[in-house]
Amino acid sequence: MRRFAIIGHRAVTDPGFSLNDMPGSAGRMDVLCRCVNASFFLSHDLRRDVECYLILKGGEEMTVRFSGERVRSLNPDERSSGALIKKALAKPCGEEFTESSPGVSIRRGGLRKLLTEYSFAILDEGGADIRSAGMIPENLLLSDHQNFTEEEDILVADLPRISVGPKVLHADHTITVVLNEVDRRGL
Amino acid sequence: MRRFAIIGHRAVTDPGFSLNDMPGSAGRMDVLCRCVNASFFLSHDLRRDVECYLILKGGEEMTVRFSGERVRSLNPDERSSGALIKKALAKPCGEEFTESSPGVSIRRGGLRKLLTEYSFAILDEGGADIRSAGMIPENLLLSDHQNFTEEEDILVADLPRISVGPKVLHADHTITVVLNEVDRRGL
Repeated sequence: MRRFAIIGHRAVTDPGFSLNDMPGSAGRMDVLCRCVNASFFLSHDLRRDVECYLILKGGEEMTVRFSGERVRSLNPDERSSGALIKKALAKPCGEEFTESSPGVSIRRGGLRKLLTEYSFAILDEGGADIRSAGMIPENLLLSDHQNFTEEEDILVADLPRISVGPKVLHADHTITVVLNEVDRRGL
Repeated sequence: MRRFAIIGHRAVTDPGFSLNDMPGSAGRMDVLCRCVNASFFLSHDLRRDVECYLILKGGEEMTVRFSGERVRSLNPDERSSGALIKKALAKPCGEEFTESSPGVSIRRGGLRKLLTEYSFAILDEGGADIRSAGMIPENLLLSDHQNFTEEEDILVADLPRISVGPKVLHADHTITVVLNEVDRRGL
């Protein structure tokens, strides 16, 4: 299983956000929606061996998980994943993942908890080039349009770092380039 | 200048389409919006040396051109490019490009005309691998979620073909992978 986790620093955790204003009042929820698209979509197919974790920090920290294996009713447009995130945020939940729609689950807590469960590498422009990497890390962590906070920097200080190229890309574009390298290696 | 052209087989040419239903009644306009995003956005920057041509075929054929050099008020979310496309479609125009907002222009006509102006290569899963290509073609043509029509197939029959990897990707993801290769070569 390949996992992408993306930190949405201002992404709201109130399910009342508007699908018509995801970049604004929803706290750049559009960035996370595009990461869901990049994680799963192939032409007329879905990547079933991927999970995508969205860490929403614009409120009490919550994590929404999309599982390619089970997800249904996901279309490539931003509103489609946005609607599934809204539905997840409306679902009462505790510390364990609770399914809000097929393949989409939510729980309380964020990065700190996720890092105790899986070993992540960070996608970072200063990291080792993915094309030269002996192995592509299974689990990759990205930030949205903002840098990691000081607190996050401490949590991830010892994680390996990997880069996708000479320019700094949006998180979703980075995921696309990673998956292209994965495809080429037949992983 | 690097150019991407994307054919939107059902993308409407009526400016009245709803930004809330781009995948549905707007004829998969969302696909074209994501291609605009992929063509231009870097982290906190825009690719100024790119032009993106959207060929809308869901009505009398029209071409909307986004020019990185001059474009303003473009944000990465689908609604942002969708709104600029709406504005372009509302602009009276003829056979020559007419600017509807800074860096966005529209004209009548589609692929046949564009192919008389620039030499394109096709992004196609059966093409030569981009990583082995001696030179990356400057102008690249993609189709949306549908295959080229028979009529288009005839127009592009003699164009070189290039592939980005072993899996068939969405048009916007393909653009992202191409630009990553361009970046790596320092082009």
